[in-house]
Amino acid sequence: MAWPRKNFLLESRTARDLYFGQADSCPVVDFHNHLSAADLASGRKYSDIGELWVQGDPYKHRAMRIAGVDERLISGEASSREKFDAWCSVFPLLSGNPLQHWSAMELARYFGVEELPSAGNAEELWERCNAFLGEGGYTAADILRKTGVVRMSTSDDLLDDVSIHKKASLVSGMDVTPSLRADSILSLNGEWLEKLPGGRPKALDDLLDAIKKRLDFFEKCGCRLSDHALDGGFFFTQTSREVAAAVFGRLREASEVERMQLRNYLLEWLGCEYARRGWVMQLHIGAQRLTSARLRTIAGPAGGYACIGSAADMDSLCRLLNTLESRGTMPRMILYSLSASDAQALASLTGSFSESGRQKIKYGPAWWYNDHLAGIEDNLEVISAYSLLSASLGMTTDSRCPLSFVRHEYFRRVLCNFVGNRVQRGLLPPDIDLLKEMIGNICYRNADEWIYGRR
Amino acid sequence: MAWPRKNFLLESRTARDLYFGQADSCPVVDFHNHLSAADLASGRKYSDIGELWVQGDPYKHRAMRIAGVDERLISGEASSREKFDAWCSVFPLLSGNPLQHWSAMELARYFGVEELPSAGNAEELWERCNAFLGEGGYTAADILRKTGVVRMSTSDDLLDDVSIHKKASLVSGMDVTPSLRADSILSLNGEWLEKLPGGRPKALDDLLDAIKKRLDFFEKCGCRLSDHALDGGFFFTQTSREVAAAVFGRLREASEVERMQLRNYLLEWLGCEYARRGWVMQLHIGAQRLTSARLRTIAGPAGGYACIGSAADMDSLCRLLNTLESRGTMPRMILYSLSASDAQALASLTGSFSESGRQKIKYGPAWWYNDHLAGIEDNLEVISAYSLLSASLGMTTDSRCPLSFVRHEYFRRVLCNFVGNRVQRGLLPPDIDLLKEMIGNICYRNADEWIYGRR
Amino acid sequence: MAWPRKNFLLESRTARDLYFGQADSCPVVDFHNHLSAADLASGRKYSDIGELWVQGDPYKHRAMRIAGVDERLISGEASSREKFDAWCSVFPLLSGNPLQHWSAMELARYFGVEELPSAGNAEELWERCNAFLGEGGYTAADILRKTGVVRMSTSDDLLDDVSIHKKASLVSGMDVTPSLRADSILSLNGEWLEKLPGGRPKALDDLLDAIKKRLDFFEKCGCRLSDHALDGGFFFTQTSREVAAAVFGRLREASEVERMQLRNYLLEWLGCEYARRGWVMQLHIGAQRLTSARLRTIAGPAGGYACIGSAADMDSLCRLLNTLESRGTMPRMILYSLSASDAQALASLTGSFSESGRQKIKYGPAWWYNDHLAGIEDNLEVISAYSLLSASLGMTTDSRCPLSFVRHEYFRRVLCNFVGNRVQRGLLPPDIDLLKEMIGNICYRNADEWIYGRR
Repeated sequence: MAWPRKNFLLESRTARDLYFGQADSCPVVDFHNHLSAADLASGRKYSDIGELWVQGDPYKHRAMRIAGVDERLISGEASSREKFDAWCSVFPLLSGNPLQHWSAMELARYFGVEELPSAGNAEELWERCNAFLGEGGYTAADILRKTGVVRMSTSDDLLDDVSIHKKASLVSGMDVTPSLRADSILSLNGEWLEKLPGGRPKALDDLLDAIKKRLDFFEKCGCRLSDHALDGGFFFTQTSREVAAAVFGRLREASEVERMQLRNYLLEWLGCEYARRGWVMQLHIGAQRLTSARLRTIAGPAGGYACIGSAADMDSLCRLLNTLESRGTMPRMILYSLSASDAQALASLTGSFSESGRQKIKYGPAWWYNDHLAGIEDNLEVISAYSLLSASLGMTTDSRCPLSFVRHEYFRRVLCNFVGNRVQRGLLPPDIDLLKEMIGNICYRNADEWIYGRR
Repeated sequence: MAWPRKNFLLESRTARDLYFGQADSCPVVDFHNHLSAADLASGRKYSDIGELWVQGDPYKHRAMRIAGVDERLISGEASSREKFDAWCSVFPLLSGNPLQHWSAMELARYFGVEELPSAGNAEELWERCNAFLGEGGYTAADILRKTGVVRMSTSDDLLDDVSIHKKASLVSGMDVTPSLRADSILSLNGEWLEKLPGGRPKALDDLLDAIKKRLDFFEKCGCRLSDHALDGGFFFTQTSREVAAAVFGRLREASEVERMQLRNYLLEWLGCEYARRGWVMQLHIGAQRLTSARLRTIAGPAGGYACIGSAADMDSLCRLLNTLESRGTMPRMILYSLSASDAQALASLTGSFSESGRQKIKYGPAWWYNDHLAGIEDNLEVISAYSLLSASLGMTTDSRCPLSFVRHEYFRRVLCNFVGNRVQRGLLPPDIDLLKEMIGNICYRNADEWIYGRR
Repeated sequence: MAWPRKNFLLESRTARDLYFGQADSCPVVDFHNHLSAADLASGRKYSDIGELWVQGDPYKHRAMRIAGVDERLISGEASSREKFDAWCSVFPLLSGNPLQHWSAMELARYFGVEELPSAGNAEELWERCNAFLGEGGYTAADILRKTGVVRMSTSDDLLDDVSIHKKASLVSGMDVTPSLRADSILSLNGEWLEKLPGGRPKALDDLLDAIKKRLDFFEKCGCRLSDHALDGGFFFTQTSREVAAAVFGRLREASEVERMQLRNYLLEWLGCEYARRGWVMQLHIGAQRLTSARLRTIAGPAGGYACIGSAADMDSLCRLLNTLESRGTMPRMILYSLSASDAQALASLTGSFSESGRQKIKYGPAWWYNDHLAGIEDNLEVISAYSLLSASLGMTTDSRCPLSFVRHEYFRRVLCNFVGNRVQRGLLPPDIDLLKEMIGNICYRNADEWIYGRR
């Protein structure tokens, strides 16, 4: 049984017209992911399908845990083959889960495999896929190019060497730029502070100077975006430089509230720095990363065991934005949230701040665990109703695995079906040329222009 | 291309039977809006289509801001024609947004225009619509009568001259009554307090006396409803008269917590006053009005830049209601919320308090930013599942622009489609007479009886 | 008009195949309800249809209150016949409410009545149904057996005599076991503490000893589950035994915060006890039970006037779970929530803790007021997207009335339709045997194995 089918997710003639007549051939721009620029620069190869398909994908690990698979076969010391087998065994349990769709598409698109994995065919799939890998053409960059990627930004710590991205661009033939993952700055972690050029800053001014120099370097290396995780419990109140400086001066003795004040100062200060540089500031809101300490120890900080946290404090968020705007240095923003109850609120917030000539705040794509069929449809619905679908940024993978880029195809099918369905029902004017233009804008042009300033 | 079509939103035969055989011909009762009774009384005319269609509608302003239109062309000193042109230019970007539906219906129903606006036809539309306005028959009252309005309540400050409503009724031929927008009372604003008859009250008793006299006057002028905005952060705890009096006595020095106590006292006291008068108390929950201070300065307090706030504190809300009920003076209530996560909670709350002979609490229509296709469907679904659809209050516009009353037609089409779809699917018994009666009740009879005491 | 029809809720051929070819014939396992084991043991009969159908069902009482029925006819001293008539009169107002579906199915399945109730046929229905009751075969156990129940757990206070369940099993021919409703333990209520064997414990150790003995007795009587209500405002922070003991020592003078600390200690301690015994710990999150004090006095604590409360504090919940896991004594868990905004968060939490060999946390069925058509569909959708549908626990009634067990049929129809619809749309691989196995697992096998350890 070949599945999914050619017209997968395309339930109307208009949907198929829009997809095959437009979306399918659009280039891919992925403005937020966790791929390794070093891997792209070095042309890293994968030794087997387990390494490429299973070991690097925390989404799959999560499903395996729910299914009761032993941690040894997930993040433990089992062999790549054992982990591959374990994942294939779990596959028949996935009915209705997005991983069933994504994994099937990953095998079909990159390896021509149209059977669904199971314990029964794991051996055969292992051999077939490894044969492809052996033939070459399966570096991360090869896979991305097959997917149509032309531009992408990885997610990098302030102290990472982002000069590698130029080489990654040269080697891969794509435009690969860094983006700043700023969480370590706000974590106020002692070890991280030690690693700053010049060592642990003595005073707040020294810290800000050190950061500024790195921001300049990021900019030189092509950075256009930053990214902050505002996890559950985020509260914002404006903090003066004096208070912040005092807290930084005795950081080791500072209370939780004082540390929060310092973080709030830094968040505001960074926002201004981004605005001055024309960067887009991304806020990823509402993850609950502190769940099982046991799994954190075993599987590391990005091991797939985080969950969806409580809703955002909209009052705090508006206070942060208004503080930045009042200073005249509010960057453009992309808001994401894991919490279902934030979706409408954040999408409505896109109408609360403005800039002449372009949209000030965008509500981002369905993020992380919400990036499934119903989640994407809800995201499109919410953006349509509370913001402007035609100006939305489409898809970004937030992924650690190059095969996951097939989710751009997944998104585009869902998008075309969403629009096509509304045309069929008479909810959208049937102006197919206007709709195709909109689809193209959403698929890549909006991101290309609004984030990267391309025309 | 004439769009939307005659059967717009009516996707089954039953839906069309219910709409054209019942809903379409029902009178319109709009129990909460922000129209000006003075405009109705004076027979105000509109000098051009920009003034009528664009300048008075903050929903449109919001979409223009999201699209990056310069504020000068939204709330600024640009000419009416420039603002009209700006709005027409934005129109092709609205695919999927409710404004696409509403604006197209506004042009079609009141001006016979069936083309969709764009930069290309703005000139022509300007001329055509203005020609209609020049011929007369386009006062606010004319527009409302064309829409079938028979009864409506505006939203008025305690200090407004609501004697004008009698004249508005006479002139317009509709039943026009005031309703009390009580937010200024709870704002404890110094300037507002000065304007009270007799000047700033010396003591809490004086304040309550002054309020009581105005409530009596509102009642004499036909008032049947009041309205409170419970924005994000609403917390209720019962406050004694003694504490409230003490806080009022030194209001200027009162802390935020003390002011909240005084507000809570006033809220409870007002609830009792409403109950004694048989008024319905409306609670509008969950708006976030403090967003961009810049836009507030430029565009005024109702300029369309508010957003959806955090979810309600259900514990506080229940405490308020129980406090009122325990005193034997709980008014009937309509609950609205902007926050998606409140919908089920508030709808379920309609079963938590009761009165012999009639429903005590109603969950209101999809409010403000939620008043779009999916939002109305969700609202009907939630009322069906957690309360009683057949007893629901239908639609009210909450609008500042008479053309927006076309949204009663929009609501009715969605309602008939919602019910018709469920009949087609076998989810509702196909008793068409019973269903038509229900549609009529929802469209106007429930509001007429439950709010206005009409039979 | 015979309604609902044979294919009620089954909208595709696949749905009908799955239902009539699999779900319909599966045994029923109901792992959480509020039936009386004593009634089952004694073979209690019902004197009339009002007693069986109306008086024991708070869902119906709630709808009657919303419809404005006098409390005398709901929970008051009116006769059974009067209450029955009142309910029949309300029935035509129920369009779209789940009670319309459930009540119609209750009459159809157990009494062969296919007309919909109304004031007009109340007399006739009263006679017809009472004639059935007079003929016998309508004890609670008879009704459950007709519904296919083979295993069920009632909900019992720690001090209840759960030795009766063995007799209930013998008499009814079903496997009837107790489950622990632990709320009275955490309520720290003085009267309840007095009733403990040995009287009010002097010290915390004595309390824990007394509880342990009862837990042992519950286990001996077949208990496999416990259940805690975490209502709005639940906050967890780990509390030491010393602090808890000190608070218990002066409980009457303890502050609200101190009582919360003691409750948190007990919650953690009980979790460990459950884990040691292999019990499943159920958390019912987000009810707002304090609404109308008046109705509580009139209608008792389970009188149907509770509502949906605020969303869960995910941080607290994760802290509780992590505390238990860190001690190595985390029981398997079923999470339920009333709040719509918790659904995705709780379902995602099932991937945050793990156990080798089986799922550690399950997201439970649509609970209480959410157990309607759209609510069940949302529940299935959320479990599919954020957890594993194939491993889910299906339906449990949480009911106080044996007729409500018809909701297992309701759930199964919705489930088969949900799956069938996705097969039709190409969203699920059309492997009908695999899907039938999944349906059987969801309908009863997963609960049988995961909770009761049956194979």
